[in-house]
Amino acid sequence: MDLKIFDRMESEVRGYVRSFPVIFKQARGSVLIDENNREYVDFFSGAGTLNYGHNNPILKQKLIEYLDTDGLVHGLDMATSAKKYFLETVEQVLFKPRNWKYTLQFTGPTGTNAVEAALKLARQIKGRQNVVSFTHGFHGVSGGSLAVTANSKFRQAAGVALSNTSFMPFDGYMGPDVNTIAYFERLLNDNSSGLDHPAAVIVETVQGEGGVNVASKRWLKELQRVCRQHDMLLIVDDIQVGCGRTGNFFSFESAGIEPDIITLSKSLSGFGLPMSLVLMKPECDIWKPGAHSGTFRGNNMAFVTAAQVLDSYWRDDRFAEDTLRKERMVRDWLENLVHSYPGAGLSVRGRGLIQGLVTPNDDDMANQIAKKAFEHGLVIETSGANDEVLKLLPALTIEDDLLMRGLQVIERSLAEVLSEKGVSARVLKFGGKAG
Amino acid sequence: MDLKIFDRMESEVRGYVRSFPVIFKQARGSVLIDENNREYVDFFSGAGTLNYGHNNPILKQKLIEYLDTDGLVHGLDMATSAKKYFLETVEQVLFKPRNWKYTLQFTGPTGTNAVEAALKLARQIKGRQNVVSFTHGFHGVSGGSLAVTANSKFRQAAGVALSNTSFMPFDGYMGPDVNTIAYFERLLNDNSSGLDHPAAVIVETVQGEGGVNVASKRWLKELQRVCRQHDMLLIVDDIQVGCGRTGNFFSFESAGIEPDIITLSKSLSGFGLPMSLVLMKPECDIWKPGAHSGTFRGNNMAFVTAAQVLDSYWRDDRFAEDTLRKERMVRDWLENLVHSYPGAGLSVRGRGLIQGLVTPNDDDMANQIAKKAFEHGLVIETSGANDEVLKLLPALTIEDDLLMRGLQVIERSLAEVLSEKGVSARVLKFGGKAG
Amino acid sequence: MDLKIFDRMESEVRGYVRSFPVIFKQARGSVLIDENNREYVDFFSGAGTLNYGHNNPILKQKLIEYLDTDGLVHGLDMATSAKKYFLETVEQVLFKPRNWKYTLQFTGPTGTNAVEAALKLARQIKGRQNVVSFTHGFHGVSGGSLAVTANSKFRQAAGVALSNTSFMPFDGYMGPDVNTIAYFERLLNDNSSGLDHPAAVIVETVQGEGGVNVASKRWLKELQRVCRQHDMLLIVDDIQVGCGRTGNFFSFESAGIEPDIITLSKSLSGFGLPMSLVLMKPECDIWKPGAHSGTFRGNNMAFVTAAQVLDSYWRDDRFAEDTLRKERMVRDWLENLVHSYPGAGLSVRGRGLIQGLVTPNDDDMANQIAKKAFEHGLVIETSGANDEVLKLLPALTIEDDLLMRGLQVIERSLAEVLSEKGVSARVLKFGGKAG
Amino acid sequence: MDLKIFDRMESEVRGYVRSFPVIFKQARGSVLIDENNREYVDFFSGAGTLNYGHNNPILKQKLIEYLDTDGLVHGLDMATSAKKYFLETVEQVLFKPRNWKYTLQFTGPTGTNAVEAALKLARQIKGRQNVVSFTHGFHGVSGGSLAVTANSKFRQAAGVALSNTSFMPFDGYMGPDVNTIAYFERLLNDNSSGLDHPAAVIVETVQGEGGVNVASKRWLKELQRVCRQHDMLLIVDDIQVGCGRTGNFFSFESAGIEPDIITLSKSLSGFGLPMSLVLMKPECDIWKPGAHSGTFRGNNMAFVTAAQVLDSYWRDDRFAEDTLRKERMVRDWLENLVHSYPGAGLSVRGRGLIQGLVTPNDDDMANQIAKKAFEHGLVIETSGANDEVLKLLPALTIEDDLLMRGLQVIERSLAEVLSEKGVSARVLKFGGKAG
Repeated sequence: MDLKIFDRMESEVRGYVRSFPVIFKQARGSVLIDENNREYVDFFSGAGTLNYGHNNPILKQKLIEYLDTDGLVHGLDMATSAKKYFLETVEQVLFKPRNWKYTLQFTGPTGTNAVEAALKLARQIKGRQNVVSFTHGFHGVSGGSLAVTANSKFRQAAGVALSNTSFMPFDGYMGPDVNTIAYFERLLNDNSSGLDHPAAVIVETVQGEGGVNVASKRWLKELQRVCRQHDMLLIVDDIQVGCGRTGNFFSFESAGIEPDIITLSKSLSGFGLPMSLVLMKPECDIWKPGAHSGTFRGNNMAFVTAAQVLDSYWRDDRFAEDTLRKERMVRDWLENLVHSYPGAGLSVRGRGLIQGLVTPNDDDMANQIAKKAFEHGLVIETSGANDEVLKLLPALTIEDDLLMRGLQVIERSLAEVLSEKGVSARVLKFGGKAG
Repeated sequence: MDLKIFDRMESEVRGYVRSFPVIFKQARGSVLIDENNREYVDFFSGAGTLNYGHNNPILKQKLIEYLDTDGLVHGLDMATSAKKYFLETVEQVLFKPRNWKYTLQFTGPTGTNAVEAALKLARQIKGRQNVVSFTHGFHGVSGGSLAVTANSKFRQAAGVALSNTSFMPFDGYMGPDVNTIAYFERLLNDNSSGLDHPAAVIVETVQGEGGVNVASKRWLKELQRVCRQHDMLLIVDDIQVGCGRTGNFFSFESAGIEPDIITLSKSLSGFGLPMSLVLMKPECDIWKPGAHSGTFRGNNMAFVTAAQVLDSYWRDDRFAEDTLRKERMVRDWLENLVHSYPGAGLSVRGRGLIQGLVTPNDDDMANQIAKKAFEHGLVIETSGANDEVLKLLPALTIEDDLLMRGLQVIERSLAEVLSEKGVSARVLKFGGKAG
Repeated sequence: MDLKIFDRMESEVRGYVRSFPVIFKQARGSVLIDENNREYVDFFSGAGTLNYGHNNPILKQKLIEYLDTDGLVHGLDMATSAKKYFLETVEQVLFKPRNWKYTLQFTGPTGTNAVEAALKLARQIKGRQNVVSFTHGFHGVSGGSLAVTANSKFRQAAGVALSNTSFMPFDGYMGPDVNTIAYFERLLNDNSSGLDHPAAVIVETVQGEGGVNVASKRWLKELQRVCRQHDMLLIVDDIQVGCGRTGNFFSFESAGIEPDIITLSKSLSGFGLPMSLVLMKPECDIWKPGAHSGTFRGNNMAFVTAAQVLDSYWRDDRFAEDTLRKERMVRDWLENLVHSYPGAGLSVRGRGLIQGLVTPNDDDMANQIAKKAFEHGLVIETSGANDEVLKLLPALTIEDDLLMRGLQVIERSLAEVLSEKGVSARVLKFGGKAG
Repeated sequence: MDLKIFDRMESEVRGYVRSFPVIFKQARGSVLIDENNREYVDFFSGAGTLNYGHNNPILKQKLIEYLDTDGLVHGLDMATSAKKYFLETVEQVLFKPRNWKYTLQFTGPTGTNAVEAALKLARQIKGRQNVVSFTHGFHGVSGGSLAVTANSKFRQAAGVALSNTSFMPFDGYMGPDVNTIAYFERLLNDNSSGLDHPAAVIVETVQGEGGVNVASKRWLKELQRVCRQHDMLLIVDDIQVGCGRTGNFFSFESAGIEPDIITLSKSLSGFGLPMSLVLMKPECDIWKPGAHSGTFRGNNMAFVTAAQVLDSYWRDDRFAEDTLRKERMVRDWLENLVHSYPGAGLSVRGRGLIQGLVTPNDDDMANQIAKKAFEHGLVIETSGANDEVLKLLPALTIEDDLLMRGLQVIERSLAEVLSEKGVSARVLKFGGKAG
């Protein structure tokens, strides 16, 4: 395949085309097909945007019907039939069973735009400028979101100093024995700590870009308590791990917390269409009409598929339970791998269908595995500050055999990489799953 | 129609649903249809997003074909067949005839994301933080873009101080006799003016949100000269008035300038699909791979329609010429209106098919006209710091009779509003179009 | 004289030692004496700090008496006898006759510290962050003050972006025909101008560092009106031109305005001792105890001399009148000079005993004159963005013959510089002072 | 004594006059005398400014002589005989024995001005904006210094967001078992920690305002190592605990470190005269001439006393040794006190003659002791975030009997306060000092 046009015409900023140097022409479910008709299993899922697979037939059907009848495609925040139906479905499927009363803000259809709106709102409500974010947090790269994003690669590109943010250590950051919430609370209780009273805390329950770092339920609960006690709003950025990625529709539900503000995007439309949403408690809804705008803030095609997703997958618990079943499959496999190579410095972490195979820092192993995996027909990416985590992010709807095929490719790729490094698998006396 | 679900579920931030309190279910070309099957002529065009009308049949056809074949919908910045074809078409249709060599960055698919990327890039290149923007300029509401947006409604919502920006008076801001570029240059030449040396200048050639303020060709040329002379990059934000809105594909072409960086969005996909683009001169392309990211930065459905738009409308000058023909129709009509009500304090300004009927400041007349127009079946919005400008933004593809119908509604609505205020039309001896 | 120790030990930041490369050992009134016993007339006066001359005998006498009795030298803001007497004298000599009710804040004893306090206070009062300053304004080089200082030499040294400030054109900046207050007001009245509503305006009535730019009384009155109308505090920074420099004790009195906040320093102690003061209207005094601190904020030796200054010079109008008499002497002389060299592009501006001989921009003439003057026994500095203004700043107490001697040196130095440039004096038919 | 004039004329910001509501008229050595001729022992020493006592006779003599001969009082940064002699003395007494090569910058004569200069310089050198400061750090209240000052009382008064600073936990902040340098280093080594690469670290070896928190030698050494390793400058702010307060002239000497930049002020002149100094390694001296200015940057009277201080006290180690001898006296006494009231929650910390008696947080005990002490004739202040530390800061030159008298007053005052709280002293079997 000839990629010259990309080299010639696209900015140096391009990224994934470098990792996956083929031209994809089609995609169905968890399979990608390139221009040479080669097929790839997709463990990448558009960085978490395709929880229901590529070209999900139920959604595609709805979308084509909508286009056929000349439904509105673009409507800013005018009322449309598609939007109305989406609102009704959210109310019925998501809010009623949870007894929730959030209001919805449709921002520009990218995650960063939702984060920007959430941060603005929190600062307006509290009349304070500082916001707390966490080590390895990722919330987007536009001015406001970037300031709460930890990664220096993105921060340095800003070309300006990023301010009004304080970073706190995420759960586990200071080692398993240090309670990072206690440190945060120490700073809050100390009026000479240098920590300006924050308006809000923004947090991911699982840090996807940051290396599949999982916040424990207890930590999240404690974080909520500290927020309440110190008059700070709790914003959960559920853009990557919401929409069912960890089992329940919202990733924070299992921790029993109720954020003041929630951001959603990525898999919200279910079809890969740009869409974003801010949920806020009614008492937080102090917006003035039109004070946050955006040309594409009403993506009606996304309303159509997003409503259908709720209708098809979220009216009962079966879908979430199936995700947890698949989690066990993935987890077992990975833990066996770790067990098989005791000298390789591997470990596993994750929740639901976001799982990371953690390799030693700074030796590029995860990237090498991903590269080999691609050669063997698996699309998978790495994350973490040094790309040290192989990140498994299959569609929630992936068929079991494709899931197994992907896992096998990982195992084979790992074996090859380790073999090149001279690490061999443990010889098991009794036949186990491993190696 | 029952709008209760919107009141109940949507944040107070919602805007247009208040101005147009009906539920739209369908749209074709320049006609919107509500749930009661009432039809409206569209002079709003999704705030400039629908230059080729709603559900443009050529584009819709292509889109459905693409879906039918399971082309990739979501692909981040992986190479896809749809993207490849779009790149080829841009090169052939836009760059070759102009002998251009820009490179393309696909940012998150909203205008503000493109602006954020442009600002970052400029600051990185020059190693300076300050950027000059203009009075009444609008460039988006995310952190970086908001700092260069003039409107206090948006700025105050930030909840933080917006910095690294200096505002200069736009063309004509200090009255017809004051050369605002000369003032800008005076500040630049004075090392004690307080103006920190800017990395770049960002400008709209016609300020859409700001009240349809038109920069003259001479002013733009002068601005480019000042930028070159003072080592500042020139960024033209062509999001609202590019893509043919003023005739040529790029709004700045008629001024004979060549910006260092160009931002495009809104009508880029042609179908109302979210899509954005930053064009930069090759020497400006100092991006590091992946340093600006975004989940929806490769909207493949938008690539399909965007390529088709270039293919169908921009291979020769006919489309641009037709826009200028329609400009004359609109302009004549509006100038006649102004002429008809000499006591009403009206005037007209604009370029191509963005035209503003300027009403006196602070008396809400433009909003009243827009409201009456809606009652009479025309969707139209106002702009300007005090909503004092009735902004005509029909699709470029609008049929002549629909264009006339819209203009007639404006005339009728204006007459009604003025009549309520006790202003009557000039009695014309000879039959003219007016009154 | 051997200056090697200065070269070896002092930072490159040193400035005046480069302009006046001798070692001064003594000073009396308006005469400086170097280690070779050479005498210099002082038209520099410690940049406006020595309005009553060097080692003023009345003040010196008081100071030695105070030291002899072991009065407190350092007392932070504890109550001391010296401070008490100073407060009583201010009340009696400055406030009673003016019917004023300001309260006094003693900040760290440098001008910049007073400005910092004033800016903080204004921002706290209004709850807004932006402050307006003017082109060519100088208010100090610490973080807060630097942000309202226009000169890029100082700004660039900050190493950070300076924010929360908007610069407006000073009186006359846009030429004699443009009312710069009208421009400022235009921006304030326009809610889409990009000017964030300022908490305050900070202004010098005569810009000393900025090039002896004089604000007209009308402009200052208008500025006060605009401040009142737009809910902004008016801060007059009277550090350089207060304390009698323009005639009255406060420079703004002749304009009939009453600033909300006033900063004083430089000649406040009268003896060259560090001392600063913020005056604020009682309704502005919302300080919390100890919220602005500073180790040297109660310079008791300065209280002693400052009280004596008020007692000796300011109980009636005679001192101010004498300053105006000397102003006429200086002014006449300078205007004659300008008249004598019609081709030299010279002009004069100033108020009271701050007068500037303005030379053409960018040809270094003013520095050359100052250099020659120093050779001829006159200490004088230049100011303005390009050092284009020869700044006459003699002590207010200078004897008439020393004043004339200094003026003669200027004339001679100017003649020499112009002669080197090939410009000769006008040949006057009738004997005038010139030439 | 009548304090009405202070209430009437002084801003609400006044502080110490509230704690010590008498009018002081004289002071000699470690004794203050009020207008009723009552005497007070001084354990406050102008917050560390009077290390050599009030009106030190050697210094006073020199000062009067200087005034008698009409030496220059004010000279900006012109060369003067007094300055020359000061430079020579610094070179001979401070630099030669240490084999140092720092260059000297005389900033405006307040500590905050020195800190501002140091921060600017560090940022210019590294071309980075962020600076690391520590919990409970205090460096001044002007814009730049305030941003690195931890106390919220001062920070909130800014009225703007303070940026370009990251706070790290000081030695011991996270408990005795947590190595706070390790945490800092973890963040530096992690390119996704959110910590923007700092240009410099600014630190006090003993945090005076922050509650007499002592950094261990090991911690300081480690801090220097981390700075070197991560290309950050090390700035030691020795304003409060330099000039012999902890024994050696510089407080950091015993830790064996060599900061890149050092700030001095407070006791530098030795006589309570405003004076400040920045020392920088020659390779750091990238200042452009005049890029940091200040009206009072050459306080010649302070040069006279400062040179005399070096000459009289610092030519050998005797003075430092005597300070350490007094430290033992104070320390023994305080530890006995702590021992005597085991239930009172007291502890002691400090170095040299800055010692803190730490009382339980939040019960105002330290303030109560200080209040009683004042009634009993001792001037002493509290520090720490909640004023929980009674801070002993006697002159280094204090006579032993006055030192004992002050300690006895503390003991008595403590006993009274505890008795009111119902805490009684431990009954000691064997006669000790306590009880």
